[in-house]
Amino acid sequence: MVTTWTRHVSPATAAAVLLALGQGRLAAQPPDESLPAASNVAGALSPGIHSDGRVTFSLRAPEASSLQLAGGDGLGKGPFPMTRGADGTWSVTIAPPVPGFHYYWFVLDGVQVNDPGSETYFGYSKETSGIEIPEAGADFYGIKSVPHGEVRAKWYLSSTTGEWRRALVYTPPDYDKNPSRRYPVLILQHGMGEDETGWTRQGKAQLILDNLIAAGKAEPMIVVMDRGYASKPGAPPFALTAEVLLRDVQLAFGMFAEVVIRDLIPTIDASYRTIADREHRAMAGLSMGGMQALFIASRHLDQFAYIASLSGPVIAGTDPGEPLGASFHERFDTKTAYDGLFADPAKFNKRVKLLWLGAGSEEQQLHASISDAVAALRGSGVRVVFFESPGTAHEWQTWRRDLRDLAPRLFR
Amino acid sequence: MVTTWTRHVSPATAAAVLLALGQGRLAAQPPDESLPAASNVAGALSPGIHSDGRVTFSLRAPEASSLQLAGGDGLGKGPFPMTRGADGTWSVTIAPPVPGFHYYWFVLDGVQVNDPGSETYFGYSKETSGIEIPEAGADFYGIKSVPHGEVRAKWYLSSTTGEWRRALVYTPPDYDKNPSRRYPVLILQHGMGEDETGWTRQGKAQLILDNLIAAGKAEPMIVVMDRGYASKPGAPPFALTAEVLLRDVQLAFGMFAEVVIRDLIPTIDASYRTIADREHRAMAGLSMGGMQALFIASRHLDQFAYIASLSGPVIAGTDPGEPLGASFHERFDTKTAYDGLFADPAKFNKRVKLLWLGAGSEEQQLHASISDAVAALRGSGVRVVFFESPGTAHEWQTWRRDLRDLAPRLFR
Repeated sequence: MVTTWTRHVSPATAAAVLLALGQGRLAAQPPDESLPAASNVAGALSPGIHSDGRVTFSLRAPEASSLQLAGGDGLGKGPFPMTRGADGTWSVTIAPPVPGFHYYWFVLDGVQVNDPGSETYFGYSKETSGIEIPEAGADFYGIKSVPHGEVRAKWYLSSTTGEWRRALVYTPPDYDKNPSRRYPVLILQHGMGEDETGWTRQGKAQLILDNLIAAGKAEPMIVVMDRGYASKPGAPPFALTAEVLLRDVQLAFGMFAEVVIRDLIPTIDASYRTIADREHRAMAGLSMGGMQALFIASRHLDQFAYIASLSGPVIAGTDPGEPLGASFHERFDTKTAYDGLFADPAKFNKRVKLLWLGAGSEEQQLHASISDAVAALRGSGVRVVFFESPGTAHEWQTWRRDLRDLAPRLFR
Repeated sequence: MVTTWTRHVSPATAAAVLLALGQGRLAAQPPDESLPAASNVAGALSPGIHSDGRVTFSLRAPEASSLQLAGGDGLGKGPFPMTRGADGTWSVTIAPPVPGFHYYWFVLDGVQVNDPGSETYFGYSKETSGIEIPEAGADFYGIKSVPHGEVRAKWYLSSTTGEWRRALVYTPPDYDKNPSRRYPVLILQHGMGEDETGWTRQGKAQLILDNLIAAGKAEPMIVVMDRGYASKPGAPPFALTAEVLLRDVQLAFGMFAEVVIRDLIPTIDASYRTIADREHRAMAGLSMGGMQALFIASRHLDQFAYIASLSGPVIAGTDPGEPLGASFHERFDTKTAYDGLFADPAKFNKRVKLLWLGAGSEEQQLHASISDAVAALRGSGVRVVFFESPGTAHEWQTWRRDLRDLAPRLFR
């Protein structure tokens, strides 16, 4: 193979290319023996994970007056002040975080900014840095030599909102090889401030399913992940806040529920080889998405036979006159909660093939309220699966484990 | 529909949710009559595009000492100093940029940071903010009420590098509706510092194809977009720089070429209903990707009958002893360039169904060198299509227009 020509680019061309493309960020010198996190952009050495699990974060900022590291709960009790080195690179080494995925950011002279060394992940209603902390022995969300499904971006016009929307659709391995086979459908929703990319990017749902299906532990299924926000036609993007969500679930989720029922399900059934009945359709979500799953599925039991809420706040009371000061446990009333969904346990148990609730052991009040609701439901005779993720809080490692427990229980 | 329960969440649960989720960024007050750019995250009002085309960028940074806006060429001649308002929000309004997509960033006390109001786009080897400036009358890359294809994430194990790689694969509308139809394949590569997401996120290639196919102007085709970097097994990510690229194309592209020929093409042919021969396979790319298209396709004419380089630097000389100071035009030798690929024009014209070169009119030296090469090739009898994008430089609007011109010429 002749390669001499490869050495000959004119300097004018070279200059043009260099000017036009700019230079990519040069990788910082490795500060130590640490290895780049899997969530780093290719070539970025920081953040680096040490063999003992500690993590070092660095940013070059010679002119900065102050720099801190901050992030989600699992990262540790921050914010962490960073220290300026002689060359203007600031750094901090933190104790081993909880395994799993954690959002993080730098606070540079008072402004939250991303780490250029990290990929970005949609959270907190914006693109945010994230770090993947390996969990020893946990390979259920790793990529393995097993058949892999695809994740497809599917654009569809919503008659409800008048907008083009994008759903991400996981099709199981061999979907294209078995053109006559039909599959059940799991609708799987992200949390507040996240979007339709969360379950595949942060959650690695596609790998969890690939691995479960390869092991024969889960039924091959289609997983649909949509953007859990919807606005009225012509309206600006709906600014969903926690306050709105907790004050008025109908206002928060009503339009999205319409999108799911009127637009999303018909689109999926028309576009993919689904088994288009309630016995082969599940709705699940995490946090806000768990609230949505219960909100939507409980009102449309003709469409769903499986319902799962992963760290989703449980709605308790019924009496508009009652002050909100009462404790959750006292207020969860299985007769009236969710419009009487659980009022007749025998009927519910017959109609709903799976009610699945989960929480991380470190979710504190949320864990307590969900487990209290589970106790009340079980006490009344409602069949409910409760899954607890040990040692994790309101974070993606909880939800990855949730999906590993949940998926094998669906459609069997 | 009973909705009373929606108003009842216990304060403990509310507190837990608020604490756990954090609050999404509150949208800044609209500074004026401007409309959010389509590239903003939902709800972000800045950057805002005014009716006269000017653009205002804002960032709240009360403690910052200095703040500038900077970005790609089409944004204007920056960097642009930003001015601090009384409330600590800095802003700047710039003259109407060139229509299309432009990378941009803020320089906050000397550090390049992203705009939290923008989606991020992989460029400059990291996640970078970007702004979409509408072009009056140009709707060829807009989403319309036409049948839409899908963009699929396809994971595959590279025998060449030993790594799992992800390609993005556009399947045309109705791919799943016509289970016996087979399609030609275009491999379409990004530029240096970008990745496999560039052509769909920045380039909107899927919409350009949807629109062309719906209008009957392009043959329905599968488009494969891979990450144009590859390292030897076990090696750290290859730090491809412009210097390496211009010094040694074999070093820069050799491994990736192996991936394309040994892994990618067989994977695509095994996974999708392709027409698996050279007459139905094209390779194209922008900038560095254009160099790759010529590098790979010219050495594997048994695999490709269509070759396109979009703003790709053209390799000129052949003589290792010759100093690089000679002008490009003098040095482009149709007899020896590209290992003699063009030495026999009649043979080349018969073998290669399309050689397509393009450049933006504002690419200056790069435009001059590409158009000079075109003149030399035509002078020698080589059939080559040259497309010039008026008024645009080394930027995505050039490459969107390129694809609109190129795609209809393929496989017909």
